[in-house]
Amino acid sequence: MMKLGIIGTGLIGGSIALDLRNLNVTSRVLGMDQNSENLKDALTLGIIDEIADLKTMCEQCDLVIVAIPVSASLEILKLCLDDLSPTGTLMDVGSTKGKIWESIQGHPRRKSLVLTHPMAGTEYSGPSAAHRGLFLGKAAVICNEQENEENSLSKIRFMYETLGMRLISMNANDHDLHVAYVSHLSHISSFLLANTVLAKERDEKKIFDLASGGFESTVRLAKSSPEMWAPIFEQNQVPITRALGDYIELLKEFHTQLSKGNFDYLKNKMQQANEIRRVLSQIQMTKASATPPREVRK
Amino acid sequence: MMKLGIIGTGLIGGSIALDLRNLNVTSRVLGMDQNSENLKDALTLGIIDEIADLKTMCEQCDLVIVAIPVSASLEILKLCLDDLSPTGTLMDVGSTKGKIWESIQGHPRRKSLVLTHPMAGTEYSGPSAAHRGLFLGKAAVICNEQENEENSLSKIRFMYETLGMRLISMNANDHDLHVAYVSHLSHISSFLLANTVLAKERDEKKIFDLASGGFESTVRLAKSSPEMWAPIFEQNQVPITRALGDYIELLKEFHTQLSKGNFDYLKNKMQQANEIRRVLSQIQMTKASATPPREVRK
Repeated sequence: MMKLGIIGTGLIGGSIALDLRNLNVTSRVLGMDQNSENLKDALTLGIIDEIADLKTMCEQCDLVIVAIPVSASLEILKLCLDDLSPTGTLMDVGSTKGKIWESIQGHPRRKSLVLTHPMAGTEYSGPSAAHRGLFLGKAAVICNEQENEENSLSKIRFMYETLGMRLISMNANDHDLHVAYVSHLSHISSFLLANTVLAKERDEKKIFDLASGGFESTVRLAKSSPEMWAPIFEQNQVPITRALGDYIELLKEFHTQLSKGNFDYLKNKMQQANEIRRVLSQIQMTKASATPPREVRK
Repeated sequence: MMKLGIIGTGLIGGSIALDLRNLNVTSRVLGMDQNSENLKDALTLGIIDEIADLKTMCEQCDLVIVAIPVSASLEILKLCLDDLSPTGTLMDVGSTKGKIWESIQGHPRRKSLVLTHPMAGTEYSGPSAAHRGLFLGKAAVICNEQENEENSLSKIRFMYETLGMRLISMNANDHDLHVAYVSHLSHISSFLLANTVLAKERDEKKIFDLASGGFESTVRLAKSSPEMWAPIFEQNQVPITRALGDYIELLKEFHTQLSKGNFDYLKNKMQQANEIRRVLSQIQMTKASATPPREVRK
């Protein structure tokens, strides 16, 4: 059983630790968090067994997982690589990959850092949001894996498969472009939809009285953490600018045709959008067919 | 127990019929639908007891519910009022109210039409989407109720309360403005988010491989029926144009600041958006505290 280190004991780091312990993949979890309240909570909630400093964690652990805002990862990953044990593996789980990839290019231990992105975020954060089974049936992206040493790569593949995830291999730049469209843009649309209606609330005090399931669904992501998302927008600025630009163009055209009363155009655009049923049923099917994770050893 | 007529045996009409029968409010349900497949399904699924023509239904039923696209309602409601029995009540459940209100102003029986909007749509439609309990804990708007005769108004209030809904009274124009922001805009944001990523799929074949819960949540409404939504956009053109214009302005400013690299601005906007937590927890609490409907008579 491996010794695990978690830097950032929030939703993702905490949920991985809970699952790996429950599945007998890890016997001992060391934790680090710059927020001391979170660290205490992580101990209380049984996410980690002990608090450790970075050097101790990296020297002692078979696997160190960095699950913190991507701006902080840029600094910490290099420090971790400096102290990583000869057979140790470092993994990041952030929502952007290109900048992090560039930042470790000069490092002699760079082959031990596996760049991953488990597609399993929610709008909640912190240790109390962590829970078992978060990853089941979802996608885990591994980027630029041809650059990794075999030991580290197989350790990470084994770990994600044990969590019940399906692995996707792609290069870091493709990843960043894809998530700009299928994740980051959804967050922006949701944040600003919330702001649009909140601004209207100043004149129309009771505007939320009629809000129901549809509204709830589209603004759910507006609850997400600005501390996590501002660095993502910074590191993925170019692809997100493009995705948001595309979205605004379509909205502006829809707006123009709406104000002109061209309802056939609107209907046609909605019919096109209905094509998303194919995508959503695919997501549902993949989830439904996932095999629950099994204990690895007794 | 009252005799019920349902024009449009889809999600809303069908679900009302199923609940009212189950709660012993109605003993017999007459149905009408311009789609003969739907009508057959409604019979098979036990939503209606018999198929009826408009005249028979309006002459015989204590309550006739019109649950069809709002463009069709403009025509049918007047025909129903023409044939409505002296003690009969007519109710519409459409997503817009102003145009329908105007359209019946000259009619001698207009006080028997109660304008309502149960805020309980989903992205599914047709009789097979109908189910019991759809309305529990949600809001039912009644518009311009001061214009209704007491008999009809109390029948409708009783009916919605029996379904477990909370009643909101407001005028038709306020309703149309409010739903433009908290419902119609959500649908547009979702339709065009779907189109943005579907367009990108032409170059990036695998772009949906990374789509997960967040994407699913924000594009769910893009599955909605264009046949239902085009008439809503038509009848509520002015308020929706305004709401969409507000949304686009916020998105454009976000886009500008993103491309300039002003990440403090972005963070500030996300912090503002987090305020939506108050609204969403209110929706959740209201749902959780709703009392399940009870049978009215044995």
